[in-house]
Amino acid sequence: MGVLVVGTVTLDTVETPNKRVENVLGGSGVYAAVAASFFGNPVRLVGVVGADFPHIYADFLHTRGIDLQGVKREGSGKTFRWGGRYAEDFNVRDTLFTELNVVSDFHPVLPETYKETPYLFLANNSPSLQLSIVEQATHPKLIVCDTMDFWINEEREALEALLARVDILILNDSEALLLTGDSNLIRAAQVILRYGPKRVIIKKGEHGAISVTESSFFSAPAYPLTQVIDPTGAGDSFAGGMIGYLASVEDTSEKAIRSAMVYGTVVASFNIEDFSINRQKDVQFSEISSRYCELQEVVRF
Amino acid sequence: MGVLVVGTVTLDTVETPNKRVENVLGGSGVYAAVAASFFGNPVRLVGVVGADFPHIYADFLHTRGIDLQGVKREGSGKTFRWGGRYAEDFNVRDTLFTELNVVSDFHPVLPETYKETPYLFLANNSPSLQLSIVEQATHPKLIVCDTMDFWINEEREALEALLARVDILILNDSEALLLTGDSNLIRAAQVILRYGPKRVIIKKGEHGAISVTESSFFSAPAYPLTQVIDPTGAGDSFAGGMIGYLASVEDTSEKAIRSAMVYGTVVASFNIEDFSINRQKDVQFSEISSRYCELQEVVRF
Repeated sequence: MGVLVVGTVTLDTVETPNKRVENVLGGSGVYAAVAASFFGNPVRLVGVVGADFPHIYADFLHTRGIDLQGVKREGSGKTFRWGGRYAEDFNVRDTLFTELNVVSDFHPVLPETYKETPYLFLANNSPSLQLSIVEQATHPKLIVCDTMDFWINEEREALEALLARVDILILNDSEALLLTGDSNLIRAAQVILRYGPKRVIIKKGEHGAISVTESSFFSAPAYPLTQVIDPTGAGDSFAGGMIGYLASVEDTSEKAIRSAMVYGTVVASFNIEDFSINRQKDVQFSEISSRYCELQEVVRF
Repeated sequence: MGVLVVGTVTLDTVETPNKRVENVLGGSGVYAAVAASFFGNPVRLVGVVGADFPHIYADFLHTRGIDLQGVKREGSGKTFRWGGRYAEDFNVRDTLFTELNVVSDFHPVLPETYKETPYLFLANNSPSLQLSIVEQATHPKLIVCDTMDFWINEEREALEALLARVDILILNDSEALLLTGDSNLIRAAQVILRYGPKRVIIKKGEHGAISVTESSFFSAPAYPLTQVIDPTGAGDSFAGGMIGYLASVEDTSEKAIRSAMVYGTVVASFNIEDFSINRQKDVQFSEISSRYCELQEVVRF
């Protein structure tokens, strides 16, 4: 089944204690779409780039089978640029700059061929923009959205309206605390469920992720990595891998979502082993399966 | 099989945002021994108390089948007193006071009947004192020890000597970072293995615990609690539950240790539902089994 990803397509500058890369392919839409593309579904990307967006990046996304019909090229503008720097242990990230460029005036309109897509991932964005996508989708089977501190603080009302319309909210632990004021993540998730989503997934970085519904609780392990190169895009890779798997099995049951979270974890683990989407370029599906099985062993008792 | 627990027996004053209790039964030895006592083994406790130690507390430990022959009563001294205060989210604890009293001059000598005990848990203490216990044990089958930042900073050499003699080191994430300087917990555990222990278990509080050996990695979930009353003693309850289970199955295999870590997690989860060892008083083994099964569901995918 098809997957629709709405998110940013960016040129990133990333500094880690070991290396610096400039204007590499990035953005929530890219990370999520590349992750989803491992599972053999049509992946449709919605976003915007400027005239300066390198053709080799577009070509790469095409080779992954990602439909770019929904990625608008603004002839007169520049692509969204983001710069970030990681501290020694990768737990702290400073944003060096954010140049929205073409993104600032972007109001996505779904191409006709995209509208019936059943599996939607709305990467972190303005909640009103995310809601406009929900309203354009004609046959959504599963709507997953992400958000961040900025929208929780600045567009709370729109965010609550969005939450009433989505199936799954994915956010990280500090965002869950910010949204609810509750530092107990399970209680925080229970509070968020009252806004409308059927499931809340809280990402905890090196501690894995949890999923909470009215009647279930799941704790997904992190993949045990000893070498982190660049964590940028890990959260979107997680979400993209998750929805990619769900679309491939055409199943949104508790069991399928648990597997999907672990597949998302695995794709994210590859993502952070190199800058940009470099590591994903040569990952075979057999490697994904192999790490999935490893994680089954990691939690077995 | 028998379990030997060497640790403190204290009178604690604990303040949480909701309540304050004074001079309640506490101490690493007590928490660990009570936890171990759920698994039907003889539990032998080594520690020291003062003349002021309430008989009702001793009586309670007796009713749990805990042998107190190794708990010296110093007629002229006062029992170790500790006071601590928890902040709103229970992640920060301030020590209000520490009155070592009878503990400051304590050099434990194992009673003859204790020496052959096969399963040893050496709760956080001076590494040289812990080592003296190792040297008195005649038939140890499994030696598990805990430590803390103070000893890592102040008695590094003695700690390294101890690590060469134990099977399992249990410590928390911040202590693992302090001991190795590495914030990646898996790498940190691998570094610690080089000091001698066959296994390193790192406690991560609400994020569960991990176990690392040369050839295995296990991630144990936390029990999903929405109500924390008092986390004091959770780490010692975890360790005590763990060694209690291992002694009961007479098995130190990877499989047994994984189960033991989950049993430890369960006992700790009950511990934090009330002050002191109050919650443990009425916990039935069937409730422990039930939470163990719940945790199997929590990680299943």
